[in-house]
Formats: sequence, structure tokens, C-alpha cells
Amino acid sequence: MAQVWSDDRLFPPDPTERGLARELYAVVRGLPIISPHGHVDPRLLARDEPFGDPAELLVIPDHYVTRMLRSAGVELDRLGLGPAAGEVAHREVWRTLATHWHWFRGTPSRLWLEHTLHEVFGIHDELGAENADALYDRIGELLATPAFRPRALFERFGIEVLATTEGADDSLEHHRALAASPWGIEHRVISTFRPDAVVDLDRPGWRRDVDRLGELTGEDTGSYAGYVAALRSRREYFRRHGTTATDHGHPTAGTYELSRRQAETLFERARRGAVDADDAELFRGHMLMELAGMSVDDGLVMQLHAGSLRNYDPAVFARFGPDVGADIPMATDFVHGLRPLLNRFGADPSFTFIVFTLDESTVARELAPLAGHYPAMRLGPPWWFFDSPDGIRRFREATTETAGFRNTVGFNDDTRAFPSIAARHDVARRCDCAYLAALVARHRLSLEDAAEVAIDLAYRLPKEAYRL
Amino acid sequence: MAQVWSDDRLFPPDPTERGLARELYAVVRGLPIISPHGHVDPRLLARDEPFGDPAELLVIPDHYVTRMLRSAGVELDRLGLGPAAGEVAHREVWRTLATHWHWFRGTPSRLWLEHTLHEVFGIHDELGAENADALYDRIGELLATPAFRPRALFERFGIEVLATTEGADDSLEHHRALAASPWGIEHRVISTFRPDAVVDLDRPGWRRDVDRLGELTGEDTGSYAGYVAALRSRREYFRRHGTTATDHGHPTAGTYELSRRQAETLFERARRGAVDADDAELFRGHMLMELAGMSVDDGLVMQLHAGSLRNYDPAVFARFGPDVGADIPMATDFVHGLRPLLNRFGADPSFTFIVFTLDESTVARELAPLAGHYPAMRLGPPWWFFDSPDGIRRFREATTETAGFRNTVGFNDDTRAFPSIAARHDVARRCDCAYLAALVARHRLSLEDAAEVAIDLAYRLPKEAYRL
Amino acid sequence: MAQVWSDDRLFPPDPTERGLARELYAVVRGLPIISPHGHVDPRLLARDEPFGDPAELLVIPDHYVTRMLRSAGVELDRLGLGPAAGEVAHREVWRTLATHWHWFRGTPSRLWLEHTLHEVFGIHDELGAENADALYDRIGELLATPAFRPRALFERFGIEVLATTEGADDSLEHHRALAASPWGIEHRVISTFRPDAVVDLDRPGWRRDVDRLGELTGEDTGSYAGYVAALRSRREYFRRHGTTATDHGHPTAGTYELSRRQAETLFERARRGAVDADDAELFRGHMLMELAGMSVDDGLVMQLHAGSLRNYDPAVFARFGPDVGADIPMATDFVHGLRPLLNRFGADPSFTFIVFTLDESTVARELAPLAGHYPAMRLGPPWWFFDSPDGIRRFREATTETAGFRNTVGFNDDTRAFPSIAARHDVARRCDCAYLAALVARHRLSLEDAAEVAIDLAYRLPKEAYRL
Repeated sequence: MAQVWSDDRLFPPDPTERGLARELYAVVRGLPIISPHGHVDPRLLARDEPFGDPAELLVIPDHYVTRMLRSAGVELDRLGLGPAAGEVAHREVWRTLATHWHWFRGTPSRLWLEHTLHEVFGIHDELGAENADALYDRIGELLATPAFRPRALFERFGIEVLATTEGADDSLEHHRALAASPWGIEHRVISTFRPDAVVDLDRPGWRRDVDRLGELTGEDTGSYAGYVAALRSRREYFRRHGTTATDHGHPTAGTYELSRRQAETLFERARRGAVDADDAELFRGHMLMELAGMSVDDGLVMQLHAGSLRNYDPAVFARFGPDVGADIPMATDFVHGLRPLLNRFGADPSFTFIVFTLDESTVARELAPLAGHYPAMRLGPPWWFFDSPDGIRRFREATTETAGFRNTVGFNDDTRAFPSIAARHDVARRCDCAYLAALVARHRLSLEDAAEVAIDLAYRLPKEAYRL
Repeated sequence: MAQVWSDDRLFPPDPTERGLARELYAVVRGLPIISPHGHVDPRLLARDEPFGDPAELLVIPDHYVTRMLRSAGVELDRLGLGPAAGEVAHREVWRTLATHWHWFRGTPSRLWLEHTLHEVFGIHDELGAENADALYDRIGELLATPAFRPRALFERFGIEVLATTEGADDSLEHHRALAASPWGIEHRVISTFRPDAVVDLDRPGWRRDVDRLGELTGEDTGSYAGYVAALRSRREYFRRHGTTATDHGHPTAGTYELSRRQAETLFERARRGAVDADDAELFRGHMLMELAGMSVDDGLVMQLHAGSLRNYDPAVFARFGPDVGADIPMATDFVHGLRPLLNRFGADPSFTFIVFTLDESTVARELAPLAGHYPAMRLGPPWWFFDSPDGIRRFREATTETAGFRNTVGFNDDTRAFPSIAARHDVARRCDCAYLAALVARHRLSLEDAAEVAIDLAYRLPKEAYRL
Repeated sequence: MAQVWSDDRLFPPDPTERGLARELYAVVRGLPIISPHGHVDPRLLARDEPFGDPAELLVIPDHYVTRMLRSAGVELDRLGLGPAAGEVAHREVWRTLATHWHWFRGTPSRLWLEHTLHEVFGIHDELGAENADALYDRIGELLATPAFRPRALFERFGIEVLATTEGADDSLEHHRALAASPWGIEHRVISTFRPDAVVDLDRPGWRRDVDRLGELTGEDTGSYAGYVAALRSRREYFRRHGTTATDHGHPTAGTYELSRRQAETLFERARRGAVDADDAELFRGHMLMELAGMSVDDGLVMQLHAGSLRNYDPAVFARFGPDVGADIPMATDFVHGLRPLLNRFGADPSFTFIVFTLDESTVARELAPLAGHYPAMRLGPPWWFFDSPDGIRRFREATTETAGFRNTVGFNDDTRAFPSIAARHDVARRCDCAYLAALVARHRLSLEDAAEVAIDLAYRLPKEAYRL
């Protein structure tokens, strides 16, 4: 069945509001994409090899999709994940998606996938059991053509900057290769410095990773001073290769003022493996302070993603590893957690601090009032489960009245799924325009101002906030 | 004054959305009612005697109504509750409702009562001081006629299954009487197994109730092993009489992995009366694990209603007993609370676990992500204070994008007020159709898909989830 | 650029809803203003001197405005605040507002300021860098004319009662001067008794303030008994000068049942300066009980504003003092916190208890169910960050279904910014009418009932609840 793919999608039905939303969207739909935070594999663009098959592209790496299929009773093994991945035919994985397509009704995953099918692949039939094979073949054919290689899609999507995310020990080999290539000189692909693995004492590999940090930098990471110097050194390495931001994924928003001596003691105990969960919390929170200080010095924008309880399901984690849908949000206290950091660095004009939450109850209560006071603080866009039409609307409704638009930073696609980047930005732009149209229709904003805000959200604010 | 009783009630005014809502509602309005969770007294249907007077039917047993009247300053004694119940004329109770009718503006109670007056009794005048007596008499006359007996209303409402709720010691005499009657063979009225009284060490009668459990089952409930065996035995008794689900009302969502030895010790101390609030919490949470294990074995669907602080007002509790409006919701931590249970049973294909909350901040943050990962877990509909037009809308907006529709289970009326069953299901169907119409109007769902979802929510999902 | 200043502002665009909103607003737009809680300086009205310049009137004292400017990177020193206030030209402060006008897009501050410019000053140009000086001059000229003196604006705004807020040691000299003046006899300006400074042991000046309380009342505030007597005495003093309510700003909603002996011990330790934060919490919560008891006796309505973490930013506090935008909301537990107070006084017919929150997640979960049970309890309107179009809508959506309208108390402008009083009440009336129109359009309320509710919210409920 051919599907209606309306150009009014995500716009409200009221004729006044819809008209305004269309007008605003016309202003921003063609703007370049700024993608300042995400998880695309830089190798894709460095090598520019064809993508794999449709399941490899659209199902297997997308934990939004595999999570929902698991909740429907499909074991992750059947989706080409985990140790038995090789035993599952990818065509079967695709068929499983097709036969469970109704589970995705009303979800952003379906919206993004439909956008991708329509706009990227020109497929206007609705996915279902009966055409799963035909679509699998059709997409597969397209993926084999030059127009569907990563760089071609990058250009077609109109991406101006794409930031990937790498650990502190990453060699940035793909970014360096890109930078040295003619395509890479004309197109901007940068990394984000994410040192969680060497900051979080709870991670099993922490000691090994800290050793490796020493090797990479020539610093003695057996001591706290050497460890800090090594982190500075790696930041500098990233910065020299184009990085403008760091990112920190922490279970809580806790930051703590430790003395140098306390930090050293903790670090030494950690080197001996003699730390518990409280120590790890304290050290993470102390290191946020330390890293914020480095940001003040080197100008890297600091991002904090707080409030996810990682690897909630030990059986899934043991078999399938991290990031496979068993991370669950939890209540987060930003108001007490961030106080030390904000009071030390929040008014520093050389500091930018972008905060993300998975606890929507904190947005109007804590985050918007904080961002509306501290010059350094900005509100990251709705993250993960809240990167969705209703999530975006609620975010704007919870932030605008207290923090305005300029304390926010536009959109992050935050995706591993390269072909969905355009879809995600399009959904965000449409939702922001719908929100602005509602304000204009209620005379809370003039149409001229709304158009300025639309451009801010789609383009100017991410560029400014991330110093791109 | 005659009231306008529009067939467009609860639908949005925008012509596009309203048209879609009408279309969707037309698909579901005539579907049979599945009522898988509620508190109707089974004696009503077993005996099929006429209902009492209007106050007895519509005011006195409805704690939504008496609660609001109390907040308006009407003492519960004046409403025919408590030890002085016999001293209050029911006509006076009805008049009190009528003179306080304006207190209910905008509430679901008023919506349900109006629906009941219009649709059940054919009364199209608005209740007020001036016609209170006339309406009292009119309803009284109707209730004396055969068409208003419980079974006649059951049939008129189109109820396919009605589940009541009984304690572990219940004899199910009314269910058995029904099952043996010609009417009961053609109409399905089943019980739900709710063992709170013998699971919650905090209840004053716990020891007595556990003794009684022993007598009923022939097990030695002086020992933990016998207690567990007795619970299994009672579940089997319920199951044999048609029960498909259990229900558990707990103050928290805590579940705990205790060793057999720890559980035995707690139980033995409880038998001696030597337990405190922490012990009770631990034991309740341990028993949820134990009972979930039994569900895996016997196939009874498990429901958890967590987060109500019962009997908040000791004076009201002392004089009027439980369930009279002094239960207050509180912040609830599902993410840590349910972790042991979900990780032990959440992927078991023979387990279904339906969770209800009174803390809306947990829905998008915790419950939808959990239901969107664990195959066994489903989200119960908006409960109690949130069984309302805005509550239903917020529930869908908080769940759909993360968990979809199929991780929810349609509607529960959860009512003691038998004549309002049709009203409550009608409100829920209209609200769901309005929500779906909003999605369709924004091209987030096709009309065909929306119609499928409407049928799922009104009929298929409750039937499947509750294994009816 | 001339700005469109629509008389449909804040109304929904749907023609049905908009028509209903207009109809309802027509009923209430001309009603007198009841302003039962705010922070206007009574000297303004007692002296009736001309207001200062536009910056002094509209920017410097408005912490909503200065907070946002600070978040934009403008140091508070540049806004005429703090020790260097005298060094900044007020015209420069006004220009700073003008050049940052875009930061306020979508905020209630901008809405109120625009309303004030249009409706109070007749200025229909949009503020911007190019006309900042011209508008500064124009407003300055108007402020020098008799029509813009405080009393003239009071009359023009149609204020029937204005309540200011004073500390327990206030002499009420301005209220007394007003009461003795011909204008004051015809216009009602009363105080609200706010004893936080002598109740909160955490405040540095507590001992000094308690001494002063003793001097004022002739009671021996060195003892707990004398302290309590002094509070009673000051309440009586306020009451005799027209006060009908008290107000209490506490970080938590904690109330505690202490024995007389425990309270005395705490008080004695506090007199010696030997208390910590836990003691202060306990004493504040105990004093709420004590003060509620006094309310039962003297009939003063009790207000509680709970959940603000005051002076979050020590550097801002040290330089600029309290109330300059560094107060941040935090999660608040009303359900456990208020239990002692509600169970002792909540059913007392001579008690009225109005509760405000900055934690929206508590509104539907805790506050509406509590207000829907305890006759004494009422819900204060959306406070501070939530006094905004979306805040008001969410408040109604979170309260109406459980507590109805009559457990709320209409609107509080809560402002220091005298010229914005009319704007704030107008915004609230429009938002309430828009909400009611949405209910009517969905047949959840008749238009007649909605008109009654609109009058209740705009006029009757505040008057009744505050006993005016």
C-alpha cells in the first residue's frame, strides 16, 4: 500500500497554526545541518565504502529499534546481535522488523525510518510482511550505488559539521585520514572528547585504560598529577585535530569540591583497586570539576549527560554488551549536584556547559532556572527517549518561559544511524516550527521573531554554543 | 435546565481532528466491554437484586465523590458513612451532592455521573438543588424496575468479561453461584486474586489472616514453607474458578532478592509479632518475587499497583475505615525497586507483569523505558486520580513514543460503582480516539493504523494481556 | 516597528475555542483586581510620589528580568544592582534591556513588559536598540505626570484590595499612614504577616531579630514562651491593621510534632547559637504547627511557599543580597512533610491553609489529592517560574480533575513590579479563560458553568479564601 507522505507532517491541523508552521519551516528546511553531538563511526566517512545490507544499516545498530523488538518478545539473538550474530540471516532480521512494524506505531523510530525510506531511498510503500523481501532487495541495490555511499549522503543531507564521539585513548586515525583527504578538507568531521572510561572508577577496565593513557601521553598515570596531565594532553591532541567539545556520561549530576589531597588519595586507592561505589561517585564528580577547569583553560565546550542507569539488565549486558537498550533513566538531582561546579565556573565567560537530562521533571524545576541564571550554562536538547515530537514540545514548554530560547542550543541528533541524520533534524525542525507557530497564533511571539528563533534553533545556536 | 449532551464530548474542536476522532470512535463505540480489573461486589450479580436508592448507588460508595464533598467541608458522617450511617436520610445525602454539584465542575466524577444520568437513566436535566428531590424519586423508580437490575445493566453495557477483586481467603461463593447459574454460564464474571492482607506484615490482622489461610488450605501456615504452599493452593483455587490475574497494592515498588533462610527468619519473626516497618517492606518486596515465580508456574497475570500512602488521615481511617479518600499518592522509584524482579522474570515468556503508578513523573522516565525493554512488562492504564481526560492524554503522550501502544493494556475501570462502568469505558474510548486523531491529523499515524490501535486499546489488548 | 497588539492574545487559534475564550474573557476582563499576595512597597502608595525613571521602574527591581540578563552574560553590576549601583547610568541599564530584548522572546517577562508598554504607557513600538532612548524619554515624561503616580495607577488598574508583605517586626507605618488618609479610607491596602526572619534559625540575624521582637512586644523572647507570645502579639498588631493572612517561605514542606519541652530545648540552644541545619529544619517545621494553631485562633489565613533553595549562588548573594535571581527550586515532599499539620488542623473549619509549590511534579501527585481531602487546604496559584501561560495551563490541567476549581484560590500576582500588576492579572485571566474554553469546546463544562468559574477564579475565590 502506498503511503501518504504529507509535507505537513508534524504540523498542527488548525489552519492558522498550520499556515504559520509552514511559513516558518520554509525558512529553515534548507539550512545546513549542524550535528554537534552524535555517535557516527568516523571510519564510514574516512573509507567511504558502501554501507552493508538494510538490516545492517537500519536495524542491527539501532538500539531504539532492537529494544522495542525485544519488548515484543523477539530475542536479541534473532536480531543479529551478540555472540551468535553470524548465525542469523540479515534478511530474516529485516523480515522480523517488517512483521513487527505495528509495534512501532506512534514512535519516533518509525517516523525516522519512514522518513529515511521516503526521502533517502524514494520508497513510498509501507513496510509489511508482504513486501519485506522486495524492499530489502530494493534498498540493497541502492546501497550498492555511488549515490548511497557515506560521503554522498553527507553531501546530500547538507551537513556542514558532524561531530563524532571518541574515548580519551582514541588515535583519531579516521579523522586524521579525513583531514588529509581532499573531501575532508571541504567537509568538516570532528571528534568529541569523551573520557568516561578513564574517569569512572566503576568501569572494570579503568586501571588498564589509565595505563594506556600514560603510554599514549608519556605521562606517569600512576600518580594523580600525571593522570591529570595526561588528560590535558589528550584534550590538546583532540583540540589540535578540530575537536571543540567534550562529553561526559554520568549516572548522577553530582559534582564535588575535593581537596587536591583527597583527590590524590582516592586516585591512589583506585590504582590499587580499593574503591567502592561511593568513591567512584565522588571521583566522577570531582573530575567534572577538574575537567571544567580544563575547559576554562583550553576552551573546549563541556557537555554532561546525566541520569542514565547503565546496563540495568545484567543478562543482556553479559551477552550483548553496552548500549543495547538496557540503560534506564532515573530521577536526577541537578540542583544540589551541580552547585559546586556552577558556583566555581558558572560565571566564567570562557566556559560553556551544556546539560542533558533524562528526567523531564527536572527541566522546568531545576535546569531552566539554573540556565536562566548562570551565563555559562546552556540546556541540551531533549535526549534519547525524549528526542521525539512530544518530547520536543514538552522541552520547549518547560524551558522557554524561564530560560528563553537562547539558553538552549538547538538540536543534537545523537545518533549511530547515519542515514537517519537528515530525518532526525527534519523532525526537530518541524516540531520547533510547530511550537513557534503555536506561540505566534496566540500572539506570544511575532512571526518575524519566530522566524529568527527558528533559524537560531536550526542553525545559529548549535554553531555558537559548540564554537563551530 | 436541560443540558446539552453532545455526542462530540471529549473530542477536540478543530474540524479535522474532530472528524477523525468521530471516525475512530465509530469503530470502537459498540465493541464489548472488557473489564479486567475492578471492585464490583460479585454478590450484586449473583443475587441480581434491585440496587438501593440513588445515594446508595451513586454517592455513598464512591470515594471520588465523598472525598470532594469532604474537601468542601461536608463531614463524612453527613454522607451516610461511618458508625452513624444509619442516622442520615439518603435523600439528604443526595441533596448534599446536588447543592455541591458546582464543586465537581471539570472533574471526571461529574463526567461519569452525567453520563450515567443521561445514558443509563435517560435524565437530561442538570442536577441542582431545585430538582434534587425529583431526580432522586425518578432514579428510585427506575431502579425498582427489572431493566435496572445488575444483570440487565451488565447486558445493556455489553460487558464481555468482568473481573472483580477478592482477598486470598475469599470463598468465591458468589462467583461459584454465578458459574452454576444459567446466566452465569453465558456471562463471564471472574475474580482477581489479591493477597495483600496476608502479604503485608504492617496490617494489624496479618497473623489472624495467615492462620485463616492455613485453615482454608490445610497447610501449616506457622512455617514459611506452609505459608507459601497455602498461597499456591489459594491461587489454584481461584484459577480453577476462572481467575486469570493477581493484583498487589503496595506502598512502594520495592522488590528484593532474599535467600530462603532470610525469608523464613522474617516470617518467623512476623509470626511472633516482632517486625518493624523495614521488615514489612522487605517482606512485601520479597513476596512479589515469590508470587512472580508462582505466576510463571500457574500463568496468572501479575498486576502491581504501587505508590499509594494508605490511610494518610488517621482520624478518617479510625472512624470510616479504609478506602474513604484518605489515600495519597507519593513519589515512587520503579527503576531501582523493580530491578530484581525484572531481571529474574522480565524475559520469561510465560510471565505477564502489569504495572500501575500514581506518580506521573515515573511514566516517561522509568516505566515506558522498562516496558520497552522487558518482554513480560506492560503498562497499566492511568490509575485513580489519573483516570480522567487529561490523565489519559498525558499517559499516552508519556508512553507512546518510548513503549508504543502494544506495551500498554487498554483500559481498566477499577470501579466499585457498577452503573458507571459504561461511562468510564466510554470516556476512555473517546479520549484514546481523540489522542489518535491528533496523531493522524499530524501525519504521525495513518488513519488505518489508528483504527487498528483504537480496537487494540478498547478490546484486543486487555483481552490478550489478561489472558481472557 | 509598530507591534500588533491583538486583543486575542493568549487565546487559542481554533475559531470555536477562540470564540468561547473571548466570550468568557468579556465576563471577567472588567472585574476589580484582588491582589492578596505580593511584594509592592507600601511606601509607594503612602507617599504617592512619582516613580523614578524607566530602568528604576521596570528593570532594576525585577529579578525575573535581571536574572535573564545575567544568564546572557550581563554582569549584575551593569544593571544598577549591588554596591556599585550608583556608578551605572539608568539610561544604560535601559539600553542593555533593549539590546537583549531577543533573549526574552517567549517569556512572561516580555509579555508583562509589552502589556505595560501598550496598556499603561500607550507605547506601540517594539523595544529595540534603535528606539531605546526615545522610549526611555517618553516613559520618563509620562512618569512625571500625575496620571502615572502610584495611586492613580492603582485606581486605573481597578484594584479592590492590595496585600503587601512585611516582616514580623514591621511597624506598618505606611499602612497606618494610608489608613489615616482620605485616599486610604477608600482604597484597601493591607499587609501580610511574614515571620520567616524570626522563625528560621538558619538566618544569620535570627538572634538579633528575636531580640527586637521582644522589644517591640514587651515579651521576654529569651524564653520560648515569651517568643511565642511575642509572635501572637505581632499577629494581633497586624490583624488590627487589616491583615488577613500570614505567609511562610520555607525550603521544605516539613512539619513536625514536637513536644513543648523539645521546642523549648531547641529554642534555648538557638539562643546560644548552638544549632545546625537539622535543628533549623525541625524548628521551622515545628513553628508551622505552632503558627497554624495561632491561625485557628485568630483567623489569619496561612500561606506556605515551600521548595525554594535560597541564595544558591554565594557570590551573587554576597555582592547583591537576597532575591536577585539565585533562588532555585528543588524537589519537595509535601505528602510526608505536611502530614502532621494536615492531620492536626486540616479539618478545622476555622483554618485556611494555602500551599504553593515550585515542584510541578507534586501538583497532581500530592497537592491536588491533599486539597481534595482536607477542608482547610487550598492550592495557591502557579508560583514564580510557573506564573506564565504554560505554567497556568499545566496547573489547571494538573489540579482540576482531582481537586476541582473550588480548592484553588484564583490568582496572586506576587510582584514587586507595581506597574505590571494589571498585566499579570490580565495574563492570568486570559489563560484561565483559554483553559475554560478548551473544556467547553470539548463538552467537559457548559458555557454557563465556565462563566461562573471564570468569575470565581478572577474575583470570588481569592476574596473568599483570603477572607477579604
